[in-house]
Amino acid sequence: MLSRPDVAVVGAGPVGLAIAWRCASRGLRVVVHDPAPGSSASHVAAGMLAPVAEAYFGEHELTGLLTASAARWPAFAAELTAAAGVDVGYRTEGTLMVGLTADDLAEARRLWAYQQGLGLPVTPLRPSALRDREPALAPRVRGGALAATDHQVNPRRLVPALRTAAERAGATLVPAAVRRLSDVDARVTVVAAGCGAAALTGLPVRPVKGQVLRLRAPGGGAPGFRHVIRGYADGEHVYLVPRDSGEVVVGATVEERADTDVSAGAVLRLLRAAVDLLPELAEYDLVETLAGLRPGTPDNAPILGPLPGRPGVLAATGHHRHGIVLTPLTADLIADLVVTGKADPMLAPFTPDRFAPAATADPAGTDADGRSGAFAPEEEHTWN
Amino acid sequence: MLSRPDVAVVGAGPVGLAIAWRCASRGLRVVVHDPAPGSSASHVAAGMLAPVAEAYFGEHELTGLLTASAARWPAFAAELTAAAGVDVGYRTEGTLMVGLTADDLAEARRLWAYQQGLGLPVTPLRPSALRDREPALAPRVRGGALAATDHQVNPRRLVPALRTAAERAGATLVPAAVRRLSDVDARVTVVAAGCGAAALTGLPVRPVKGQVLRLRAPGGGAPGFRHVIRGYADGEHVYLVPRDSGEVVVGATVEERADTDVSAGAVLRLLRAAVDLLPELAEYDLVETLAGLRPGTPDNAPILGPLPGRPGVLAATGHHRHGIVLTPLTADLIADLVVTGKADPMLAPFTPDRFAPAATADPAGTDADGRSGAFAPEEEHTWN
Repeated sequence: MLSRPDVAVVGAGPVGLAIAWRCASRGLRVVVHDPAPGSSASHVAAGMLAPVAEAYFGEHELTGLLTASAARWPAFAAELTAAAGVDVGYRTEGTLMVGLTADDLAEARRLWAYQQGLGLPVTPLRPSALRDREPALAPRVRGGALAATDHQVNPRRLVPALRTAAERAGATLVPAAVRRLSDVDARVTVVAAGCGAAALTGLPVRPVKGQVLRLRAPGGGAPGFRHVIRGYADGEHVYLVPRDSGEVVVGATVEERADTDVSAGAVLRLLRAAVDLLPELAEYDLVETLAGLRPGTPDNAPILGPLPGRPGVLAATGHHRHGIVLTPLTADLIADLVVTGKADPMLAPFTPDRFAPAATADPAGTDADGRSGAFAPEEEHTWN
Repeated sequence: MLSRPDVAVVGAGPVGLAIAWRCASRGLRVVVHDPAPGSSASHVAAGMLAPVAEAYFGEHELTGLLTASAARWPAFAAELTAAAGVDVGYRTEGTLMVGLTADDLAEARRLWAYQQGLGLPVTPLRPSALRDREPALAPRVRGGALAATDHQVNPRRLVPALRTAAERAGATLVPAAVRRLSDVDARVTVVAAGCGAAALTGLPVRPVKGQVLRLRAPGGGAPGFRHVIRGYADGEHVYLVPRDSGEVVVGATVEERADTDVSAGAVLRLLRAAVDLLPELAEYDLVETLAGLRPGTPDNAPILGPLPGRPGVLAATGHHRHGIVLTPLTADLIADLVVTGKADPMLAPFTPDRFAPAATADPAGTDADGRSGAFAPEEEHTWN
């Protein structure tokens, strides 16, 4: 580098690359550090943009963020496609939420009622209307509802598109790992390193394992269904995401583990639930079994904003199951923060300082410099 | 080659390599043609040596051949290990045959009674004795029997061992495909090309697809069971073959198809049956899903001996599900035939001429030269 960059982004997943693109587009000199762009959680992710179907009890603020980011997706996808010349597989058929048995349907209906109570667009469907929309659903499926605004994108197209857009806007990719933040020289450093953020910052980001399958429709055609299908099948939660290419993503386990082994039991449960909901999937090829690690946080919400006691360091991590849907809004909010120095009020519930000792009632976690022990990096004990 | 070889073997699977080894050991000059040794059916095979468990109704002559070949396995494995310096994973714990439900057990008992009627060593076990032998079996398993003489070997070790032994005995491997038998110049040509024999010879060898999984015990240890386990689980037939390395082979479908795609439905059925019989397998890693093509024949028995109307050409193909167990005997009988010119009486039920027109009552199948149309090669219409 001839001179010190304005922004160094650590991590070239969708979030890091989108931040780099947005910052570079606004005239900043941007460097992105990653030895293997797009090789972590996004490589495994299904790409559901599902603020409605993913609106869970007790996550009201997160739901607001997901909804706001999903609303930016149509323009974001169009702008990205124009900038990169790559179709990112943005599809708007919507999501069907279904229950296989009466018990499954009862559980689903509890959640739909909650989602409707938030004013989210959930439309219960009569069984005949459900089958009109997706004739391939198993006759056993007892009922369902439509989340018409829950769309999808293909993460494996998204990453190369974002990389191209960022590079065309002037960002530079450095294909090397950052071991310590003190090794990064920039006016602002953005830690968008997913699970790697824990070691770099001490933030409470932990790996949450997810196992996912990829099937392929036989004969080279498109899958025999168009909607994203999410459902409960004998108590097992599963989603099915169809792509134009013939691919169907089947996911996903949620496990408090840090390995990326694929287990026979997980594959069995996913396949059983998938075939129970959509019998024709039994005839599909099984082309990939894979496990990835989501960057989870104590409250399942992302960590966005200035790192306490670390001037010039911003976090954009902890996106857990929501990294793809949150990419546009995260990028916009972080780029604004970099450019203006002021945090958008939308960031308030998600800033790193919510995990500071005052919030966790652990005064022993504060060291002699007044920095939070919760933020003490695992591999870095000096700070410039 | 400086001079014409005595024997050209087409196909470097276990059968072809063992024939090459036996012939080379007897002083013959041997060439083996194969672009990718051991890459076909044997790469997928589990390696069960199971003449007892595989003794099915109506296959009396085949059962005799399987039993005779299995009896040669201990000495064959020892001799091969000495010749090649490779442990081929020959294990003698025996095979447990089990039934999950009452219906499964009833079906299994019918077969055991047939096997016992042939004088084969099948020992029914009380449930307590079954669990003493394999405590990891599911409590639901209703009953079982021991086939103590049904052993196993590791085909992925067998092929390199046979190749080394054959080469040390003087055989030469030519890593190229044989498209037409007329391209091969040798005193005797042995067609041991598995499914490829059909195109080379016109013999009625057809691909029979088998899908197989490989699991691995977690933590790097050996599997939690020692016997080969074969069973019926809710009507699904499955086998589980444990290796010292921690690998467990789970198989196999039997499908009249010629593709090698892995289907979601097959993986689901195999995993469900496997986990139903041995619940701990759910915790194992799923490390490989694979499909292979067995060389099937109209009567499920191999095709061994002189090809009618083709002087100097011998067939050693069509081993279907029994290629590994039949390797020692096939090699010995074919090598004897090459050396002495006389066919052992054991070969009589398995010679190619059983598929000649006289047997199939299709006189139109005989061409002007008196050669059988059934043997007319698909890609070769001239013969020297």
